[in-house]
Amino acid sequence: MSHPEVVPEALIVDTVGPAELPSPLGLSAVKGDEIADYTTDDRRLPLDPTAPNAASGPRFELAGARERIYFAGPKVNAAIVTCGGLCPGMNNVIRGLVMQLWHAYGVRRILGFRYGYAGLSERREPPWELTPELVKDCHHQGGTILGSSRGPVAAEEMCRTLLELRIDMLFVIGGDGTMRGAHALAQEVSRQGLPIAIVGIPKTIDNDIAFVERTFGYATAVAQASAAITAAHVEATGAKNGIGLVKLMGRHSGYVAASAVLASRDANLVLVPESRFDLDGPAGVLRFIEQRLAARGHAVIVVAEGAGQELIESESTTDRSGNQRLADIGVFLRDALRQALPDAPLKYIDPSYLIRAAPASADDAIFCGQLAEDAVHAAMAGKTGLLIGLWMNRRTHVPLPAVVGRHKRISLDGSFWRNVVETTGQPQLLRSR
Amino acid sequence: MSHPEVVPEALIVDTVGPAELPSPLGLSAVKGDEIADYTTDDRRLPLDPTAPNAASGPRFELAGARERIYFAGPKVNAAIVTCGGLCPGMNNVIRGLVMQLWHAYGVRRILGFRYGYAGLSERREPPWELTPELVKDCHHQGGTILGSSRGPVAAEEMCRTLLELRIDMLFVIGGDGTMRGAHALAQEVSRQGLPIAIVGIPKTIDNDIAFVERTFGYATAVAQASAAITAAHVEATGAKNGIGLVKLMGRHSGYVAASAVLASRDANLVLVPESRFDLDGPAGVLRFIEQRLAARGHAVIVVAEGAGQELIESESTTDRSGNQRLADIGVFLRDALRQALPDAPLKYIDPSYLIRAAPASADDAIFCGQLAEDAVHAAMAGKTGLLIGLWMNRRTHVPLPAVVGRHKRISLDGSFWRNVVETTGQPQLLRSR
Amino acid sequence: MSHPEVVPEALIVDTVGPAELPSPLGLSAVKGDEIADYTTDDRRLPLDPTAPNAASGPRFELAGARERIYFAGPKVNAAIVTCGGLCPGMNNVIRGLVMQLWHAYGVRRILGFRYGYAGLSERREPPWELTPELVKDCHHQGGTILGSSRGPVAAEEMCRTLLELRIDMLFVIGGDGTMRGAHALAQEVSRQGLPIAIVGIPKTIDNDIAFVERTFGYATAVAQASAAITAAHVEATGAKNGIGLVKLMGRHSGYVAASAVLASRDANLVLVPESRFDLDGPAGVLRFIEQRLAARGHAVIVVAEGAGQELIESESTTDRSGNQRLADIGVFLRDALRQALPDAPLKYIDPSYLIRAAPASADDAIFCGQLAEDAVHAAMAGKTGLLIGLWMNRRTHVPLPAVVGRHKRISLDGSFWRNVVETTGQPQLLRSR
Amino acid sequence: MSHPEVVPEALIVDTVGPAELPSPLGLSAVKGDEIADYTTDDRRLPLDPTAPNAASGPRFELAGARERIYFAGPKVNAAIVTCGGLCPGMNNVIRGLVMQLWHAYGVRRILGFRYGYAGLSERREPPWELTPELVKDCHHQGGTILGSSRGPVAAEEMCRTLLELRIDMLFVIGGDGTMRGAHALAQEVSRQGLPIAIVGIPKTIDNDIAFVERTFGYATAVAQASAAITAAHVEATGAKNGIGLVKLMGRHSGYVAASAVLASRDANLVLVPESRFDLDGPAGVLRFIEQRLAARGHAVIVVAEGAGQELIESESTTDRSGNQRLADIGVFLRDALRQALPDAPLKYIDPSYLIRAAPASADDAIFCGQLAEDAVHAAMAGKTGLLIGLWMNRRTHVPLPAVVGRHKRISLDGSFWRNVVETTGQPQLLRSR
Repeated sequence: MSHPEVVPEALIVDTVGPAELPSPLGLSAVKGDEIADYTTDDRRLPLDPTAPNAASGPRFELAGARERIYFAGPKVNAAIVTCGGLCPGMNNVIRGLVMQLWHAYGVRRILGFRYGYAGLSERREPPWELTPELVKDCHHQGGTILGSSRGPVAAEEMCRTLLELRIDMLFVIGGDGTMRGAHALAQEVSRQGLPIAIVGIPKTIDNDIAFVERTFGYATAVAQASAAITAAHVEATGAKNGIGLVKLMGRHSGYVAASAVLASRDANLVLVPESRFDLDGPAGVLRFIEQRLAARGHAVIVVAEGAGQELIESESTTDRSGNQRLADIGVFLRDALRQALPDAPLKYIDPSYLIRAAPASADDAIFCGQLAEDAVHAAMAGKTGLLIGLWMNRRTHVPLPAVVGRHKRISLDGSFWRNVVETTGQPQLLRSR
Repeated sequence: MSHPEVVPEALIVDTVGPAELPSPLGLSAVKGDEIADYTTDDRRLPLDPTAPNAASGPRFELAGARERIYFAGPKVNAAIVTCGGLCPGMNNVIRGLVMQLWHAYGVRRILGFRYGYAGLSERREPPWELTPELVKDCHHQGGTILGSSRGPVAAEEMCRTLLELRIDMLFVIGGDGTMRGAHALAQEVSRQGLPIAIVGIPKTIDNDIAFVERTFGYATAVAQASAAITAAHVEATGAKNGIGLVKLMGRHSGYVAASAVLASRDANLVLVPESRFDLDGPAGVLRFIEQRLAARGHAVIVVAEGAGQELIESESTTDRSGNQRLADIGVFLRDALRQALPDAPLKYIDPSYLIRAAPASADDAIFCGQLAEDAVHAAMAGKTGLLIGLWMNRRTHVPLPAVVGRHKRISLDGSFWRNVVETTGQPQLLRSR
Repeated sequence: MSHPEVVPEALIVDTVGPAELPSPLGLSAVKGDEIADYTTDDRRLPLDPTAPNAASGPRFELAGARERIYFAGPKVNAAIVTCGGLCPGMNNVIRGLVMQLWHAYGVRRILGFRYGYAGLSERREPPWELTPELVKDCHHQGGTILGSSRGPVAAEEMCRTLLELRIDMLFVIGGDGTMRGAHALAQEVSRQGLPIAIVGIPKTIDNDIAFVERTFGYATAVAQASAAITAAHVEATGAKNGIGLVKLMGRHSGYVAASAVLASRDANLVLVPESRFDLDGPAGVLRFIEQRLAARGHAVIVVAEGAGQELIESESTTDRSGNQRLADIGVFLRDALRQALPDAPLKYIDPSYLIRAAPASADDAIFCGQLAEDAVHAAMAGKTGLLIGLWMNRRTHVPLPAVVGRHKRISLDGSFWRNVVETTGQPQLLRSR
Repeated sequence: MSHPEVVPEALIVDTVGPAELPSPLGLSAVKGDEIADYTTDDRRLPLDPTAPNAASGPRFELAGARERIYFAGPKVNAAIVTCGGLCPGMNNVIRGLVMQLWHAYGVRRILGFRYGYAGLSERREPPWELTPELVKDCHHQGGTILGSSRGPVAAEEMCRTLLELRIDMLFVIGGDGTMRGAHALAQEVSRQGLPIAIVGIPKTIDNDIAFVERTFGYATAVAQASAAITAAHVEATGAKNGIGLVKLMGRHSGYVAASAVLASRDANLVLVPESRFDLDGPAGVLRFIEQRLAARGHAVIVVAEGAGQELIESESTTDRSGNQRLADIGVFLRDALRQALPDAPLKYIDPSYLIRAAPASADDAIFCGQLAEDAVHAAMAGKTGLLIGLWMNRRTHVPLPAVVGRHKRISLDGSFWRNVVETTGQPQLLRSR
């Protein structure tokens, strides 16, 4: 994994005010009494514990229940919004937030904004009142019961909505663009001196949020994507010189593609945004596939949607969330392969919507519950402008400014990527130096 | 179900010669002795048993082991070929044929031609020697271990190959185009007076073979397709005025689309080749979807690939098997919907290759085994130029000429289709009268 | 399949009165007009269409919508009850009944009795009011939302409940014991001259209802059971001389066990109630397994719960539904094998509750919908004292007296069983003659 | 998670000799060159990076490829053995070891001992020769292709076998008992001064190996177990006062039970070995369930096999591996509940063998491949007497003495357990203080 640089101060978490109320959770500060313990703000996790000077470098605050909190649960108005593309586990997070707010902290008014940030705009649809009864079974289905959308709403406008509905805390489930909006909103709230907590739960099926080891839905997506690669393998071996080509998600980072390849063991080439490649030429993709067909009679190729963008001539456009619209590398590769290898029957599979809409796997279901629980703890303690991350398998508080606009990427120097190219048998580089 | 007309004589099965050898199976002709009984040629199943004159109308020969057979197993050279697109269960059929030939009839030489009819051409790849050891686990994977291809080979050329390799019986697994080839080959074999049995096992994921109630792989395909509709539903409800559009297989017949709709219960419109529809106009598809969105805020549409072909201007072309290349109704509808309803986010899902490549469901696995068993019984008894069908849940012998070039289609007058339109809530007709 | 004998008169369906109202469905009596057609009472399906005198033998009435009906939908009070053990698809049937009653016939009062026949007793829990909104998603989960129970309630008492709640039609979802109760209730209703329709939808995971080719949930159960056999195979091959023993449902009939064996292809012995076997002796089970272990180093055994009862000394008892309590053949065999083959590690798997609780497969989901639809058509037409069957892949009306107390069993003379023993490699008989 | 104490010296890894050969992998020591980097022995991970004195406390060596190695691949004789109960992913590890040895280091002789340590005894079955061709598809099936067994073989005897077959490195896949044997063998090898590397890959479906955060197969087991809880929930809600009782694996640690509860969200009580409980009395299990039934009409209970042992009178016995045989808490609880609550229909589900025999999930498949890769790196570098662990999501080298005979257990003071009891709604303690 490769993350951007960060200074120690950037990992300090902001608050809406001093946490002076006792927690209603009744946990313990004593080890070994068979009662769960509170987490303290001073227990911090170094960014790189193997570094010699780990203790003085950047360190994360650990997530968890605090002994002193800011908000009094029964008086709290909480709200939830889900933004961006679908991702397995969104409903699990919604359910977890509602259950934890209601049962652990006694919150009795929880609004669910409809259809992403548009639900906080002036022309919003009325939000839903969320209760345990309403959400208790929603985790069995994929997607988000609240609906989602792309695109920002001005921070001032969202802030007005929060004020109007007297919201004390907003839980924002979304990806990089969404967190940019959450950061702007937190800044606006702070500018106006309002005691409203903004807490993010990172949702990116691409698993590309900086300083977050793993995001929810990613494991489910890898499992689903692996099944698509198996289908491509079946198609490829079912024809003489058959090629199976699978396009997977991954705008800036090829984690889903690479991990699915490791899970399925059936792919012979994987192309990710982190590693530039040539199409033509002696080190290019076409030559490699030609050789593979000659040697083995079939080939399976996996390509992340953000790979090879520089090969495609296109006018650059952006979508409503400000994400750059990508040219379609899947279709481009499909056509290039068909032209270069006309006798090789190619089957093109684009399973993205099937993957996104799946319900969370058991593993992701557990993870979503834990993230939701920690998000509620953070908000109740008055922490704001942060998201709940995972670092070295511990859940953490990560300030939004450290994250926004930056991406985690596969390190081509790391053992993960080496394992991937060993598995496919592809060369380390598919380009002329 | 709607089938073409047929005269009683058309259901008489051809043979390569008199069945005079005793079967090695050691079955019984006595009822109630706890030993399986032979099937006799004179036990015949009326095409329509509810018709008043059923007994004098067309009747099918029942499939099953015969007491007298034509071929002596240990001397037999058998061969198998798989043609056309992939379909769940092909490997189950291959495995079943090999197991039955080997263990029940003592056949010890079984060739597997590679890559469809091309494997019987002059420039063929060498066929595989199939044994129980080699095929015993192949049913756990989708596709066909023998490989497949589209396109015919001249009957004379295939006949030469059979002679050269001294093949006594050829099992042909394929769809309508393939059965056309099998019929031509059977005619050529007969013209030359050769005692070679040609037996088909119908493989069409579209379930559109005439006089065959259900083909293998179809149930698996419906289950997979139903999951894709669920994903479309999740996507549609995840956005304001969201539309999920799923394209499914079904060139001439919309069985997969219609059955998947019945299984999932989540679709609001299904379009099949059997029922013409308007795109525009007061009774057309666009108006219906517009109203649906206004009423419910989302819509799920399922379209079979052969539907609405007359709406699309395109030059008609044919593929190697002589099947007409279809214009892409999925992409056409997607674009038309996006243009007509620009504020309705549309997600387009084309899961066909994922569906085709799935391994057989439990139900199809059983069915494939039974079809293979009966195909071997038929060939050993010297029957030729037929395929193994299913009629009123009994396996039957269907002469190839009754089937070739004709299709089974959904009857728009039947309760199956009524059940479908009741489930979606769509009008009976989506066109101006 | 082996069914009891029946005379032609036994297949005549009873009615509560003359069907004189026009159906609100607006179907057609004209073929080819692309409008679904009504079914007529005189279109009948012979029990054995291959018999020479099929037309004069017993024949089933076909299920489907009638042009003339007895009840006026908007005035109807309908009710549903689910009885006996769980079975995949019960919720699909409940959902299908409610949707069809509500949307097709305009029924607006539909009660769901709680916990089986107990819900019709004097000390009943209050029934639920069922609506499309309430049932629309219930088919995604296994079991029955209404709850179930075993055991009869006196027909008079149930009849009083129906009168008290002014029920016009009762849909009874259950197995043989339940249908006995439904028959008694229908007789009581008739004795009192009440116009109340009693319509059964047969629910038996064992697939053992007489004159019914396949019951809902059976296909799902076979798929689940097949997976359990695979697990047993993995365990057996994972140890030297490993034995995997799977007990499956099947009190009187071994269909689930036999079909699961056909689907998985991994079992080496299947024991069913239809075929008596010895434990000891030269032809017995222990000897066969000993030989199998010596030859192959592992063995997989599948036993239906009703098999081998005569081998177990036990006092006979009956459960609340009057079903005889079976001695546990699984545990008996497990202990006998461990004693006889102490060096063969045996893993015993009893997956019954996991199988029963599964949601319906795609195939069963479709089937449940069709059964529910036809049950509503039958009740609305005033037919009573019948269940909806399946015969030669057509849905039928079967009078309860023809069914009650009788079982469908695997024919040991048929090709189905022959296919099973060929698949396992076991001898036709596992006993000394 | 709660682990035993350890001193810094206990985490120093042993070697068979100096690593002086250059690695054939051709990796890099330069960051940022898009070539994977070697791992160095001095990069160490603190046991608790959040502790103030982390750098001076116990620290793990990181797993990974070394620049200098001890063995020359083409001369190496490697061997693999799988021991103990089945666990998802064993075949993935076998496959990964063979692929990595063969393709990365050029090892050409790889033996697979049959049926656990018995395969290294004097009366052993001949081992298999493993090749990439032989193992390439084995990961699609559960279990272990090599077979397994319980029980030790004397270290001297195993050492003689290694010498006789001239084995240079042995990979041992197994749990705590197995690692005890591996440790004894490593000590014997060392006593004789032999350059044979013994490297463990921890396999425990219970996830209870000390100093190992997660073991392979555990995630798959949790997913399967979660499905069994769903079935229990369906059964419980399907009857009035219905109880679903699921027994899961977990001899010393309740991780599978607790995590499955978090994944499914359907259980109302989970009992684990870490938390003693009363059966009777005001704080006991029976009272809790009685109250739950009165309030909600059904209850789902999950019990780990090692829970509540002190409640059951039984003579203590041990199995062949020296593990104490547990009394059957599942059956004990079932009977106690039936006696105490005779009107509450109880369904008892014991899915252990179905869970164990499952193939690895996508996530576990990836993890198994990585563990196998690192095990080969460690052995080639001459490291011995260790296993490959996972700590804070980094793979590590853990010396066997630090692990053997000690268990990781759920910390009742931690947030994981708090999350579990919040999910079920059970009290923190189910006993009188």
